[in-house]
Amino acid sequence: MDIREHAESMLTALRDRAPLVQCITNTVVQQFTANALLAAGASPAMMDHEADAADFAQIADSLVVNFGTPTSHSYLSADAAIDTFNGLDKPWVVDPVGLGLSAHRTFRIRKAIQSGPAAVRGNASEIIAAAGQAGSARGTDSAHSVDAALDAAADLARTGTIAAVSGPTDAIVFADDDAVHTITVAGGSPLMPYVIGTGCSLGALTAAYLSTADGLAGSSEAAGIAELSTPVRRGIAAATAHMHFTAAAAKAHGSASGPGTFAPAFLDALYSVEPESLADLEAEWTTGGTA
Amino acid sequence: MDIREHAESMLTALRDRAPLVQCITNTVVQQFTANALLAAGASPAMMDHEADAADFAQIADSLVVNFGTPTSHSYLSADAAIDTFNGLDKPWVVDPVGLGLSAHRTFRIRKAIQSGPAAVRGNASEIIAAAGQAGSARGTDSAHSVDAALDAAADLARTGTIAAVSGPTDAIVFADDDAVHTITVAGGSPLMPYVIGTGCSLGALTAAYLSTADGLAGSSEAAGIAELSTPVRRGIAAATAHMHFTAAAAKAHGSASGPGTFAPAFLDALYSVEPESLADLEAEWTTGGTA
Amino acid sequence: MDIREHAESMLTALRDRAPLVQCITNTVVQQFTANALLAAGASPAMMDHEADAADFAQIADSLVVNFGTPTSHSYLSADAAIDTFNGLDKPWVVDPVGLGLSAHRTFRIRKAIQSGPAAVRGNASEIIAAAGQAGSARGTDSAHSVDAALDAAADLARTGTIAAVSGPTDAIVFADDDAVHTITVAGGSPLMPYVIGTGCSLGALTAAYLSTADGLAGSSEAAGIAELSTPVRRGIAAATAHMHFTAAAAKAHGSASGPGTFAPAFLDALYSVEPESLADLEAEWTTGGTA
Repeated sequence: MDIREHAESMLTALRDRAPLVQCITNTVVQQFTANALLAAGASPAMMDHEADAADFAQIADSLVVNFGTPTSHSYLSADAAIDTFNGLDKPWVVDPVGLGLSAHRTFRIRKAIQSGPAAVRGNASEIIAAAGQAGSARGTDSAHSVDAALDAAADLARTGTIAAVSGPTDAIVFADDDAVHTITVAGGSPLMPYVIGTGCSLGALTAAYLSTADGLAGSSEAAGIAELSTPVRRGIAAATAHMHFTAAAAKAHGSASGPGTFAPAFLDALYSVEPESLADLEAEWTTGGTA
Repeated sequence: MDIREHAESMLTALRDRAPLVQCITNTVVQQFTANALLAAGASPAMMDHEADAADFAQIADSLVVNFGTPTSHSYLSADAAIDTFNGLDKPWVVDPVGLGLSAHRTFRIRKAIQSGPAAVRGNASEIIAAAGQAGSARGTDSAHSVDAALDAAADLARTGTIAAVSGPTDAIVFADDDAVHTITVAGGSPLMPYVIGTGCSLGALTAAYLSTADGLAGSSEAAGIAELSTPVRRGIAAATAHMHFTAAAAKAHGSASGPGTFAPAFLDALYSVEPESLADLEAEWTTGGTA
Repeated sequence: MDIREHAESMLTALRDRAPLVQCITNTVVQQFTANALLAAGASPAMMDHEADAADFAQIADSLVVNFGTPTSHSYLSADAAIDTFNGLDKPWVVDPVGLGLSAHRTFRIRKAIQSGPAAVRGNASEIIAAAGQAGSARGTDSAHSVDAALDAAADLARTGTIAAVSGPTDAIVFADDDAVHTITVAGGSPLMPYVIGTGCSLGALTAAYLSTADGLAGSSEAAGIAELSTPVRRGIAAATAHMHFTAAAAKAHGSASGPGTFAPAFLDALYSVEPESLADLEAEWTTGGTA
């Protein structure tokens, strides 16, 4: 299959639906994540107090959990929101930032990963650590290449979770009943790692696309997507989030003078990128290995 | 009366005085709110730990309370700061973001609204909910038009609180002994809703203008404002905050390529907008109904 | 000595090493601080939960402690991280923002200052208060000139802590066995005080430079720096942080239309400023007084 024929429909559907994304995320990136979701076409809600996280999870379309700067409130909120999301069979995403940095953080992130997220999104080191292999984190940097994380990603995919690995070339790995699928997306901008929150907001946008995909099941809206299996439709959604980001980053790169001016240009581009432009990206879908 | 003849004096007085605004607000918008206050001419202080909120409330000129991402600290801080502000008869503002989203949040926000704020500022749905009518919130979006919130705003105004409704045309509604007054401010930029924190920082700037107004009581500084009644002087102050924002948004719109570049252009414009330019805005003051 | 001959080597060494800076800082400035560190060449990690602050302190190169919006988490984290840093003899910095604003805040900040930081960085009022003299704070403003803080800075320096005073002309004051040294850095941009987080991120960058300096001890990498005494090498490092900021601010000023566009231009300039350009700054090193 060619991912690009579906990505265009998926981006249009996201903007039509403006899914409401509950974000339990770190305070460093809340503003950028909210602005990225708004610019891309989704509706953000930072909702991380345990007294209302579960209530809000009833009405939110999707959820991202990111313990970058965890508090007692965010840990308790995530437990409650995840439980509600699982009960309603709605998709949610874990961003394992900081996995391995301390015993306590590792315990809480593993607990989330084992609770059935639709996707785990991180850099190569984080995905390796999330799969239980010997990954290590150092701030927001990755000590591993994306290629080095593909086996770990496939392991995660076989447990029923999309594994999305961010890097110079992103890899989105997922499994259906028959096989493991890998969609790679190349391009973007080398300035991305110099802007805090680009990775974290990609996790949030992945969540937004996942609920968009679920809404297209059996719909007549997006030709060819409605009749796909849920794992494949969700895999396409996760890949589209990365394509939306990559197209925006490439567009922004030309008008930026450095990481400072890249950030607003990137938000402009998330807002203005045309669905058709996703067809110009270097994106490839390969299927192989046993599920 | 023509609001525009007073708004110019009010903006000049704000910049002369640089009021110190205690912000108990959500972590998503703290940075933008601080930058908006600094650019507009006020002095921000995010002060939301219960161990120093009351102490700081002694020296702050005004206060905004916004439970967008509440914590135990911010709930306890707000209680303490409000008590100090009320004891010293200084003005404070509630932004009811999230009212109705959960039982706990609703309880805490209603408690604040019932504690005697000088103003409540929100979108139409939030103002309807704040007035105890059937409003509903969905993230930061409003499900209602500003017009649909005017009755609710008048209800709030009759309790002695300015009700400021944000939207494509803002409406600032307040009452004195004789009547209900409505000041509408049209214009701005359609990009505003795509930048997180524009509403929340408008609440903070409203607080800054309210203390500026109080400082003008009996002063020879601003002709025509000193001798007004407190409710009218404060109503003008709240309206000026909205005019300052609207003029800045209109100015920024021309130089923005999207929501990302709009945000810094808007801060530039808050800083550079000339008092006289407020006279060019579409602003109308109508008086009617019983107080 | 001429500070400028060393600053160039120090900046190059920072970018080569990309030191990992643990930031226990306020939520208002986390995003800007992270972006400033990334742009300057360091690696940020906001790590302020007591359950992992000490673990992370084992691997971080340097630490900044800033109680701008303290929580129980950040107070407990700072205690733990400071203890680990002191045990490993790694440098850390206190930003005394808010010192004097309330009894509780003052207690916690004084406790940090008395725990042996390598540097204290603040505006003039904060440094005066940190030295135990009659300073007072009002939001982020300073009520004192930098000159008025030089005696207080020398007092702090004699206790073994670098005192870095930010203002139109920065002063970095430190002592070795023989004398008190003062390095002044003039220039920058009058827009700096209108961007929240410029001071706080300078504290974080100072921490990054301090660990860079320690890494150069006995190294053949940076001619002339390796053989200096630790207090002098660290003093140069702190001054270089201020020179890096000042050069970037001057460069950004020309392309900014106000405080909003200054912020991204400043981040661009932190990223792009050439080591050699530090030689053009007005920086002076004077030695005098008894240690």
